[in-house]
Amino acid sequence: MILDTDPGIDDAMAIAYACAHPELELLGLTTVFGNVSVKQATRNALAVLENFEQGQIPVAEGAAVPLVQKPFPHPYFVHGDDGMGNIDLADAKAPASKLSAAEFIVEQSLARPGEISLVAVGPLTNIAEALRLDPELPNRIKQLVVMGGTVDEPGNVSPVAEANFLGDPHAADEVFGADWPATIVGLDVTHKVMLFDSELEHLSRHSKIYGDLLYRSSRFYVNFYSTSGAAQGMAEPGCAMHDATAMVYLLRPELFTTVAGPVRVASDTTAAGQLIIKRQEGNYLLPYWDNYATSSVCMGVEADAVKADFFDTLTPG
Amino acid sequence: MILDTDPGIDDAMAIAYACAHPELELLGLTTVFGNVSVKQATRNALAVLENFEQGQIPVAEGAAVPLVQKPFPHPYFVHGDDGMGNIDLADAKAPASKLSAAEFIVEQSLARPGEISLVAVGPLTNIAEALRLDPELPNRIKQLVVMGGTVDEPGNVSPVAEANFLGDPHAADEVFGADWPATIVGLDVTHKVMLFDSELEHLSRHSKIYGDLLYRSSRFYVNFYSTSGAAQGMAEPGCAMHDATAMVYLLRPELFTTVAGPVRVASDTTAAGQLIIKRQEGNYLLPYWDNYATSSVCMGVEADAVKADFFDTLTPG
Repeated sequence: MILDTDPGIDDAMAIAYACAHPELELLGLTTVFGNVSVKQATRNALAVLENFEQGQIPVAEGAAVPLVQKPFPHPYFVHGDDGMGNIDLADAKAPASKLSAAEFIVEQSLARPGEISLVAVGPLTNIAEALRLDPELPNRIKQLVVMGGTVDEPGNVSPVAEANFLGDPHAADEVFGADWPATIVGLDVTHKVMLFDSELEHLSRHSKIYGDLLYRSSRFYVNFYSTSGAAQGMAEPGCAMHDATAMVYLLRPELFTTVAGPVRVASDTTAAGQLIIKRQEGNYLLPYWDNYATSSVCMGVEADAVKADFFDTLTPG
Repeated sequence: MILDTDPGIDDAMAIAYACAHPELELLGLTTVFGNVSVKQATRNALAVLENFEQGQIPVAEGAAVPLVQKPFPHPYFVHGDDGMGNIDLADAKAPASKLSAAEFIVEQSLARPGEISLVAVGPLTNIAEALRLDPELPNRIKQLVVMGGTVDEPGNVSPVAEANFLGDPHAADEVFGADWPATIVGLDVTHKVMLFDSELEHLSRHSKIYGDLLYRSSRFYVNFYSTSGAAQGMAEPGCAMHDATAMVYLLRPELFTTVAGPVRVASDTTAAGQLIIKRQEGNYLLPYWDNYATSSVCMGVEADAVKADFFDTLTPG
């Protein structure tokens, strides 16, 4: 698999899962602007891999800005100024790949046609650029799993929009216009999979490789959830595991329920970043979903089982 | 009250309710394009009033096209070529008012400040034009009740849009930017209040004044619901009573549950016509709802009680 990421605190959780799971071969990380600048995302990706004792895995740097719109400011108040909760993570020794993210994705897909799962947990700019580079890409990708968007659950950057899709709505709309097996893991499920602080503490004591970094970086994130009201209704302090939830979907899709239909992503003013899926038969007056590729969107989740799989993967035995 | 309408088969149901209810004084109808052209809407409004033995009530013709966008074709397959289910309704003797719809609304509000409820069951072009004519209008209107939009329920002209709001999304967005007591009666409730054919037959036998026209005109509408799949899940053939549901809200608001928040209406491409309400505290990255007027949106309804009130009003004693 390839993980396209903008680390990011919950991105580090997803990277940990991808490194730790015995059934996954992580071919590389590709980085994108989003939670931080793409430069910082690349530094973090390299540093996190080294910290997880996987410094040999390549990191290919991708897009610095969205395809069309002006970039929004990075959400330093969610992930910290450094994107890793301000934990002074040391730079890795390894340099980034000379390939761009889009080139890396296309090259890997040519080397292993039909074998690679692509998991994208940041704005979809790199995936759209890979698609522009090679329109046949979807035919060589086993599946695309995307963390982003929301259908029924309120958005986190507008009443209807989730941050990754708002980060580059034009890219997202382009990506779901292509015909690959694509599944969206959005706020409809990730807001139901909340980690408690006590669970992160337990992880810090029982996972030698992953526990320290994930616990320390999550302090800032948990504090954001507590002070922003995002943790409302939770029994104790905690945070979401958005990006790691997409990783669990990859291996345990049976823990999720989905709906299928053509997906468009709006990019204008009040609706910018909104995922709009056509769930019903028949045609509407507005034709934008007609003869359009079908994607799946996760709507339900067995949250406890997802969390158990996540923690079991990081603390085997 | 003033009813702004584009008759329309369910509009005729709303007009009947407005004429029949002893607690309502119908000061006039204002007409707008939508289900039919504004010319046909005016003809229908005059003819329906005469048919209901209320030919003295004024009809003021309004907008023929939306404020900004190009008009969509009229949905002849829903309401018939004439907008009344092709029942060859005779023209009324009375002519339309010399005032435009917007002028009529403003003039009436000046004559009876604080007393008039405005119920709008078509595209909101006339209401936006009245607001442009007199920005103080909201201060003199008792309440605004609007049939349109949808929040959680799928749309009827796109996955997220309802026909009245898509008919003039710029007007709708402008209207909810003004600070009046505004309540939206959209598909979240009107799709729960379905009339059965047997009930319309009963009405035709027991309401001397309203039964004949409403039964005959609804044949086309019921057929549309049956053949389009819109009546899916109904125990027997029938149709919605969208516009009449807004009328029932006016007198029986206790039959509805609402949420409140700033409302924007999107007007671009895939999201065009979508009602976007901000239901949560705090600010989003997208600022379009900040410091914005609050509207109420109906989300729940006691459907049987609404129907009982509708039929009781049209068949008193």
